[in-house]
Amino acid sequence: MSLLPPQITRAIEEFSKLPGIGPKSAERLTFHLLRSSKASPEGLGGALTGLKAELRYCTVCQMVTLQDMCSICSDPSRDHGTILVVENPLDVIAFERTSYRGTYHVLHGVLSPIDGMGPEQLRLHELIERCKKGNVQEVIVATNPNIEGEATASYIRQHLHGVIEQVTRLAHGLPMGADIEFADQVTLREALAGRRQLG
Amino acid sequence: MSLLPPQITRAIEEFSKLPGIGPKSAERLTFHLLRSSKASPEGLGGALTGLKAELRYCTVCQMVTLQDMCSICSDPSRDHGTILVVENPLDVIAFERTSYRGTYHVLHGVLSPIDGMGPEQLRLHELIERCKKGNVQEVIVATNPNIEGEATASYIRQHLHGVIEQVTRLAHGLPMGADIEFADQVTLREALAGRRQLG
Repeated sequence: MSLLPPQITRAIEEFSKLPGIGPKSAERLTFHLLRSSKASPEGLGGALTGLKAELRYCTVCQMVTLQDMCSICSDPSRDHGTILVVENPLDVIAFERTSYRGTYHVLHGVLSPIDGMGPEQLRLHELIERCKKGNVQEVIVATNPNIEGEATASYIRQHLHGVIEQVTRLAHGLPMGADIEFADQVTLREALAGRRQLG
Repeated sequence: MSLLPPQITRAIEEFSKLPGIGPKSAERLTFHLLRSSKASPEGLGGALTGLKAELRYCTVCQMVTLQDMCSICSDPSRDHGTILVVENPLDVIAFERTSYRGTYHVLHGVLSPIDGMGPEQLRLHELIERCKKGNVQEVIVATNPNIEGEATASYIRQHLHGVIEQVTRLAHGLPMGADIEFADQVTLREALAGRRQLG
């Protein structure tokens, strides 16, 4: 690789640090930026350099925002007695496409000892403090349905025991449009266990 | 998306301009950079902002370099009578892993009218001028074996007609480790047509 100028090698290295981008993709992306008329290294570079500037986390729900408090937390028409706990800011965007009108709490990750993510690395403390302040009727835990997500949900349930009566978890079951033939057994078991009266 | 601060939206947009990165991957990459301890937006951002600084193209072969002439073109031990024509700088790196000891010519693309790539967008003129200056015995066209690559090879052959006697193309055939059962018919036809005497 010593044939390539160091700034190209450096860009390739930085791209390789991203998840899902291997050395070959990193090379391809770097040379694409050098050649493309649509994308430019200065465009992406400038956007990334300024990414953290002025960026804050909402003091209530920890969502990324430009103010002290995000637009959801400062909206009096929302139901502030319900908190939906999510792993990351994109999950908030996803739930905002539904008819949910409560508030959120963004953990910025899940418990995952193998990745060095303990309770201190998450915004769990902030969630518990927020619940202790009162006026919260329900906490809906919406971490992803995998090992880390379940472990995080269980941690939250334990730590909110005696603080919040209603700590719920999103329903498990078949996703819309799924094909039962190809559904995994855990999903099918959950779908059976959570079956509901028709009509 | 108006829930997200504009600098995040901008980074997502810039990432989306890259090939193979859709809006979802762009979101994931942006938030990964905000959270990761290994990769940082400033690291990648800085590398990209400085990417084009001091970067030049070798006046002879058009390879990316920091000098007027790249290390291969300025190496007297190389065979300067042989030019291997490639699509991009990474192809040079690939051939440098072989025992090839001639020189290169980097086109920086292939003819592709649909992508707005005509002869003027490539370094084809430089190749023809270089050949006309003399002292070139063979031009090996090593564009990729696809429609655009073949069209580019054909363009080069036409324009070097009467200038260079020996304009060759890389052999087509089965790649090492291939499984004949799964080889496509064009490759098999080429492999048959290019068969060689054993031993």
